[in-house]
Order: sequence, then structure tokens, then C-alpha cells
Amino acid sequence: MEKTSFPLSEVYRLLEPGPVVLLTTIRGGSPNVMPMSWHLMMEFTPPLVGCVVSNRNYSFASLKASRECVINIPTVELAKTVVACGNTSGRSMDKFKAFGLTPVAGACVKAPLIAECYASLECKVRDAKLVAKYNFFVLEVIQAWVDPARKRPRTIHHQGEGEYMVAGRTLHLPSKITSFAGK
Amino acid sequence: MEKTSFPLSEVYRLLEPGPVVLLTTIRGGSPNVMPMSWHLMMEFTPPLVGCVVSNRNYSFASLKASRECVINIPTVELAKTVVACGNTSGRSMDKFKAFGLTPVAGACVKAPLIAECYASLECKVRDAKLVAKYNFFVLEVIQAWVDPARKRPRTIHHQGEGEYMVAGRTLHLPSKITSFAGK
Repeated sequence: MEKTSFPLSEVYRLLEPGPVVLLTTIRGGSPNVMPMSWHLMMEFTPPLVGCVVSNRNYSFASLKASRECVINIPTVELAKTVVACGNTSGRSMDKFKAFGLTPVAGACVKAPLIAECYASLECKVRDAKLVAKYNFFVLEVIQAWVDPARKRPRTIHHQGEGEYMVAGRTLHLPSKITSFAGK
Repeated sequence: MEKTSFPLSEVYRLLEPGPVVLLTTIRGGSPNVMPMSWHLMMEFTPPLVGCVVSNRNYSFASLKASRECVINIPTVELAKTVVACGNTSGRSMDKFKAFGLTPVAGACVKAPLIAECYASLECKVRDAKLVAKYNFFVLEVIQAWVDPARKRPRTIHHQGEGEYMVAGRTLHLPSKITSFAGK
């Protein structure tokens, strides 16, 4: 799968529907990956993304220290891999190797892109003010990549208790507004 | 549609998949409603929800001053109403009357529940520290209501440019973890 550069002003279209994402970080040369679905858009341009990464997660310290990560968006074909990544910790294993994920070098950050995901967003931590209280990071997406061959990516959306909603049909309802942040 | 009380510890299951919601507030006795999809879960119990409400929206001042709101979750049957609510402003009209939405009194807040939505979450503003910089509010859900007759609510998920993904099939993949915040 070959990804090409994607306009930063369109990044909200990938994340606003609420898919589970795979967050990659790097620490001491070893990349790690964790599923995440506690995220939201906060601004269009530059695209800002807020997310909660628990301090009980191995990725937390890596994100906090490196101030970099990649948000990768998987589709339903990767659902079992996503669950496997959530059931294990990078403390005791290399999840890329264990689950057959292919790390790809990014352009702007050291954390790897995941080749098998249809979109990857290279991010820098922009604001860590609410990390101490809520484990909440404000990220800025500085480079976005999408596989242009994937026209209708079937993202997965976590409903808890082992249930995942798979993206269904698309409704077209022209609107005067761009986004429901009300900007 | 009759809603019954829903456990607060399960609220994440309603919002984590990323549906468009209808936010209701009240100001000078007049209720208002706006669509919103820039939201995320931040904690399980008490359930905390972060959201961005633009200061260009009529609802912004109301939320900021009253420190209360209701997050209502519509399904695909209400898609056109959701778009209509996003295309208009409460400054110049009563959207409840104009679009046939039925306000219902809540138990804990003055903002109304929307009868036509399958779930409603009564919220108080818990933290307004990032409002000035990002229009970002941290809400605490203090009472949740769901229509128990709605088994597979088809939520809608905003993709921008007039496109909405409709919730599709459900995958069951047992996991050891509760949520992808990694708690």
C-alpha cells in the first residue's frame, strides 16, 4: 500500500467520524503501538487533535518524553490486530513483529507509520497542560498520508465490551457548514 | 419514546464510537440546540466528556454562563434535522419549534432533553481551563437516559463536505481491556 501526502486542512474528515486509531511512538529506538479511541478534533488548520493516553500505558511516557507520535487509521481487515495490540504491552514485546505490522519511516517524526493502515498522521505534542490532570494531550498534525487507492475505508468504532461498529453506508446531505464544531 | 436511567459507568459506550450529537443549552428561558461532533471521552467514572464548542456559536455563551448542557444522541432517522440544526442559528429562531423537536425536562439540569433522540446525557461543566484557548470544555455526565427499546441505534458520523457515515454492522471481538483509552 502506497500512501501519498494528504492536505492538512482535510484531516478532520478522517478523525471526526470517531474511528479507533493505532498510535505509534518510539522509545530508545524501539517503536510501540497502542489502539486509542479517546480523541477529538480541536482545530482545522493547523489540525489539532486532543487525545487521552492513560499513564498506565507503556506509550504514555514515550509520548510525554518524545513529544511526537503517529496516528494511524486501520480498517476492519485489521480488527483482530487492533484487539491484539490492546491486549498486550510494549513493555514485554515488540508488537510490530508479533502482529505482522510494518513500520515505515515518517518525514517529520521518529515514530513510525504503519504500512497496513490506510492513513497516517505525523504529530507533535503542542500542549501538555492537561496531561497531569487528565492524561490529555493536544497534538498538532504536521504531515498527513493517505492511500489514495482506498475509496471507502471501513473504519472500526469501539463500543466497549468487545463490540466494534463497522463503518456503514454514506449519506450525502449538503450543508452550509464545514464541521460540527460550528466553526 | 420513553427513556430510562442508564448506568453512568456505561456512558463511554455511547460516545466512544464518535456519533454526531445534538447539544442543548438554555439561555433566558429559551432552549437552543446545535450539532456537535468534536467530542471525546476523558474518564469512565464519573464520566467526563471533552468537547469543542466554537465561540462563534450561539450555544457557546449559554454553555459558558450556565455551565450546564445535555448531550443528545440522534439516529439516522433524524439526519436531515441534524443538518438543519447546523445550518441555522438560535439567535434568530426557535429550532425546537422550527424542526419539530420535543424538549423534555431533565432531572438535574435546566437544559432540555430531546425526546426524539435515543439517548440523552445531562452534563455540568467541570473544567473550563482550556475554553479561552481552544473553546474546549470538560463536562461531567451526571445523569444518563436511554430508550431501552432501541437495540441497534444507527448513529451518524460526520465526515465533512456533506457526508455522513451511518453506523453499520457490529463485530464481536472479546478483549481483555475495557476501553482504548488504555485504562
